[in-house]
Amino acid sequence: MIRIALFGAGAIGAVHASNVAANPDCTLAYIVDPQLARAESLAAQHDATALPDADTVLRDTSLDAVIIGSSTNAHEAQLLATVAAGKACLCEKPLADSLEGAARCLQAARAAGVVAAVGFNRRLDGQYREVFDRVRAGELGQVEMLHVASRGNRAPAPETAPLSGGMLREKGTHFYDLVCWIAGSDPVEVYAAGACRVDPRFADYGDIDTATLTLRLADDTLATFDFGRRTAFGQDELIEVFGAQGMLVSGRQRDGDVHLHAGHQTVGPGIHHGWHDRFADSYVEELACFVRALNGEASVHATLADAVRAQAVAEAAVVSNRENRPVRVEPIWEH
Amino acid sequence: MIRIALFGAGAIGAVHASNVAANPDCTLAYIVDPQLARAESLAAQHDATALPDADTVLRDTSLDAVIIGSSTNAHEAQLLATVAAGKACLCEKPLADSLEGAARCLQAARAAGVVAAVGFNRRLDGQYREVFDRVRAGELGQVEMLHVASRGNRAPAPETAPLSGGMLREKGTHFYDLVCWIAGSDPVEVYAAGACRVDPRFADYGDIDTATLTLRLADDTLATFDFGRRTAFGQDELIEVFGAQGMLVSGRQRDGDVHLHAGHQTVGPGIHHGWHDRFADSYVEELACFVRALNGEASVHATLADAVRAQAVAEAAVVSNRENRPVRVEPIWEH
Amino acid sequence: MIRIALFGAGAIGAVHASNVAANPDCTLAYIVDPQLARAESLAAQHDATALPDADTVLRDTSLDAVIIGSSTNAHEAQLLATVAAGKACLCEKPLADSLEGAARCLQAARAAGVVAAVGFNRRLDGQYREVFDRVRAGELGQVEMLHVASRGNRAPAPETAPLSGGMLREKGTHFYDLVCWIAGSDPVEVYAAGACRVDPRFADYGDIDTATLTLRLADDTLATFDFGRRTAFGQDELIEVFGAQGMLVSGRQRDGDVHLHAGHQTVGPGIHHGWHDRFADSYVEELACFVRALNGEASVHATLADAVRAQAVAEAAVVSNRENRPVRVEPIWEH
Amino acid sequence: MIRIALFGAGAIGAVHASNVAANPDCTLAYIVDPQLARAESLAAQHDATALPDADTVLRDTSLDAVIIGSSTNAHEAQLLATVAAGKACLCEKPLADSLEGAARCLQAARAAGVVAAVGFNRRLDGQYREVFDRVRAGELGQVEMLHVASRGNRAPAPETAPLSGGMLREKGTHFYDLVCWIAGSDPVEVYAAGACRVDPRFADYGDIDTATLTLRLADDTLATFDFGRRTAFGQDELIEVFGAQGMLVSGRQRDGDVHLHAGHQTVGPGIHHGWHDRFADSYVEELACFVRALNGEASVHATLADAVRAQAVAEAAVVSNRENRPVRVEPIWEH
Repeated sequence: MIRIALFGAGAIGAVHASNVAANPDCTLAYIVDPQLARAESLAAQHDATALPDADTVLRDTSLDAVIIGSSTNAHEAQLLATVAAGKACLCEKPLADSLEGAARCLQAARAAGVVAAVGFNRRLDGQYREVFDRVRAGELGQVEMLHVASRGNRAPAPETAPLSGGMLREKGTHFYDLVCWIAGSDPVEVYAAGACRVDPRFADYGDIDTATLTLRLADDTLATFDFGRRTAFGQDELIEVFGAQGMLVSGRQRDGDVHLHAGHQTVGPGIHHGWHDRFADSYVEELACFVRALNGEASVHATLADAVRAQAVAEAAVVSNRENRPVRVEPIWEH
Repeated sequence: MIRIALFGAGAIGAVHASNVAANPDCTLAYIVDPQLARAESLAAQHDATALPDADTVLRDTSLDAVIIGSSTNAHEAQLLATVAAGKACLCEKPLADSLEGAARCLQAARAAGVVAAVGFNRRLDGQYREVFDRVRAGELGQVEMLHVASRGNRAPAPETAPLSGGMLREKGTHFYDLVCWIAGSDPVEVYAAGACRVDPRFADYGDIDTATLTLRLADDTLATFDFGRRTAFGQDELIEVFGAQGMLVSGRQRDGDVHLHAGHQTVGPGIHHGWHDRFADSYVEELACFVRALNGEASVHATLADAVRAQAVAEAAVVSNRENRPVRVEPIWEH
Repeated sequence: MIRIALFGAGAIGAVHASNVAANPDCTLAYIVDPQLARAESLAAQHDATALPDADTVLRDTSLDAVIIGSSTNAHEAQLLATVAAGKACLCEKPLADSLEGAARCLQAARAAGVVAAVGFNRRLDGQYREVFDRVRAGELGQVEMLHVASRGNRAPAPETAPLSGGMLREKGTHFYDLVCWIAGSDPVEVYAAGACRVDPRFADYGDIDTATLTLRLADDTLATFDFGRRTAFGQDELIEVFGAQGMLVSGRQRDGDVHLHAGHQTVGPGIHHGWHDRFADSYVEELACFVRALNGEASVHATLADAVRAQAVAEAAVVSNRENRPVRVEPIWEH
Repeated sequence: MIRIALFGAGAIGAVHASNVAANPDCTLAYIVDPQLARAESLAAQHDATALPDADTVLRDTSLDAVIIGSSTNAHEAQLLATVAAGKACLCEKPLADSLEGAARCLQAARAAGVVAAVGFNRRLDGQYREVFDRVRAGELGQVEMLHVASRGNRAPAPETAPLSGGMLREKGTHFYDLVCWIAGSDPVEVYAAGACRVDPRFADYGDIDTATLTLRLADDTLATFDFGRRTAFGQDELIEVFGAQGMLVSGRQRDGDVHLHAGHQTVGPGIHHGWHDRFADSYVEELACFVRALNGEASVHATLADAVRAQAVAEAAVVSNRENRPVRVEPIWEH
């Protein structure tokens, strides 16, 4: 039985807490959040101990691992403390709010020799995993281009941008990672063009809500990204991988298959309402994969080096958008 | 250059007239219709001679072929006169308003030794032809079941039922033929259950507007048919062919591929508005095939024996619906 | 906490056992099966007591309800004993192996005044429920025709036919019920044409493996059914509901949305592999609905009268297939 | 009857020749091509006069209009001569091989006061026209992002790049135009990242075969483009228009609707094989629209100012790709 502490009792923390509680191989021992009330509320549901900070927790020698689901600006310090205490770690992305911070996390975890994974849960989504498997198996021949659309169904509050790192980091790291992982090539240069079309207050907090990016990989594969912060129709995600021998499309999943024929239209189901509807299963699978890694049965699904690589793209994209020029991706991740 | 006369200047006659006029290998010499005014109107468009009856036409030794596109109750007499005059013949379905009449047509055409085809144009529709080719090539293994849905977008006038022979003949023969042709087996018994749900006046004319049928073929393949006289959404046609190794579905063709994502719906294009939108190409191909047969380059796409076979099903279905019992199909078509 | 006994430790019993175990409002107290070894094996997984017969169980005054998931030929006696003991009952379909037996079950449950439901789980499938809701809300206007395709991915062993009642009962009752429930009309006459195409041994056990049916409802709505015992491509289920103002199609659910474009093809996901993949959720929901009914918060999703109605169709279909004639449905269900 | 001369007897010239010949309101008087043999061959098919140069043609006072379908590097001189002779003009895109040249064309045509259109035939494709109409009607609310994928099924010969202007001009102008036209906003800045992945010889001729672009419009709408020179699966075209109230997708048109269910796959029709299969109708409609404009019944579907606007994007994209920086689009088109 693996004993786990959860850092962060917000939305993503609640997802992890439920999954740990439901996993027969784990026990949820602690929930840590400086907002103690919400830690207590979540802990009460899952029979865990709520605490406002991590110190006691990390001294508990019977604790095996920590899941870090706090806001981005807290990740680095918590990860460094966790690995220093010799605990395994599954950290939400991005690892840190700077590239240097992310690199420090990677170095510290390697030095500590603990199992460490980053929460790129989409790698464990059935559709994305299928695309990866088939591309890596050579079904498309040489990959030449990728396209990603990702738009959340509802915008976060603009004032959370400083906590999350903004759209190019918070949303972006998932997709920079997916593109490199699927294509099997490292990023070299990014150009990002952003705008505020959804809500002008994002600009007040130094963020954008609409962006298009072009990413060049080391083998000259090119990728485009369409990012947005809200839609009128659900959680919009699409990935196209174009290769010399064909194209794989991971489409917008429909919510069922009931169609109405009437008038000169065919009205079908919409896409998934939101992020959690679409990806709940992938978080369950992420935890299962982390458990297998702790048991020595498998590798983690995404390493801290993968996280640093994605963050290197994110930091370059932020500069690119600010300075309106293509920016080289700093190659510091060392797989 | 093949010289062709057209009998019948109604809706289907107009389709044939346009196609003959546009075919570089044919000349439309005559249009014959007892309603002379409509014959003249159509003839004027295509530079043909309009006549109220067939006598002069069939005595024209330079005439090669006749397309019979008149109402069903006129087919038999016109076909017998045509083949007696030694002219080739492409006759709309059904061949006659009785099974005996259809059999007389088959015998007379065989005795005359002329090229004779029946207007089962759907055999030349791209989708249906593809299904046929792939089934006959063995892609499904042994065929076990078929399902047909066919509903026109707009009901004919109920008072035309005596002219057309009613839904089980006029619509039905197309699909009895398709099912036997695709399955490669002859019909042995049919059960038809009809109703008037669209317009009670169909009952006044001895017809129905809604029907479900079950047809058993000689090799125990079973087929269901859903027939209706109008829809709220276009020309509805679907064929499913189920076999031991897979299933081929010829679906409802969408009219383009533009989709709107909005709210919790995806709104796509409707199906083809009507019969002609959906099948215009197949009539062009039918004429081309007839021309090839006249030139000795190919067989006709559907023989009069095929027509008799389909009509044998239709006549049994009419009795079945009237007497509410399964009825054997009289096996008189002799391929 | 509702204490539940499960009768029957076969495939469907295992599904119910897992769902009861996972439902926070229920306890699985007993598993009863004359094959004691499989009862014990299943009971061990869920911390229940295994017994070879029901007597002790039904005398346990703390027991609230019984789920009957044994083979069809055992249903009637178990249901009568259960309701006689004053226990609530969720019984798999069909209720009995004769219409009279089913009627006795209905009468006994009514006399006992207990909550009683039949396992028409498809009523709680998301797609079918959506079709029902939208049809009953009037979205299609007057319903005129329905079509059902249902083919399991893998045939049962032919020798189980006497236990299950055969395809027209075991598979059929689900779909006779769905059609009447969606259309909102009672069945009046059925015609069934069966064949053995999958495995000739079904005939040795008095069963068929391929069937087409036509069902007429009281308001002259007509339905066709295509039933088969195995496919080369998964659990095949389709329902079309055609009405005066449109058509709703509950299509074959695809397993994801990844498409490959290559050559002159587009290769997409297949349909669900089997019955359990497709309908697992509906069994969870069925139990939740039963619990709500036991708590007085809702009606059962399908009553024993619904079960008798579906069985009346099944029994008429069996006669129809045997005697090759349409057969009236005996109207004994009294809603 | 409108008398038309065609300049250019290559692939696109042949398309125009057939359409003019088939249009009842037009006569194809001349076909002009310095490669006289191919002009003669095409002229023989359509009963026109073949000539090696335009002088005689433009002096023919009975000539109404010229369709310029020669290679890009010949467009400007031919267009200037045509409008100087007072003839109407439908010119293939791009107008010229420099932005200045395109501007000269626009000025000359305006000065001459003739009807002048550019061959942006995709504006008359049914799907793209539908997207335009619905977006302009406000169905999406404010447009925020667009995505275009366009990949031809077969790469042109690399050595034609100097004649065509290269991919960013020859292919690109269609899509820069569509994006601005649909969005209703002018282009302001473009970033283009190109590569040679299909055939390294494109680089030898100063061209690329793979490119991703980001285009910013005046209202901050952002568009991404994925361009490629060959696919393994047909003529790949997709347009997504994302707005505040929904998203319209003009999808990859399938070639029919026959699906095979077998194994754990569903195999459907591929997309259109090539450019002509997909867009043949739009060229017919383009000619019809040009004829209506000549008859004073309608505006041209795309003006020379539209052509200059698209070319301004193309020229900026060429610089962007060469210098690896975003480049402002020179605003010289004056609607």
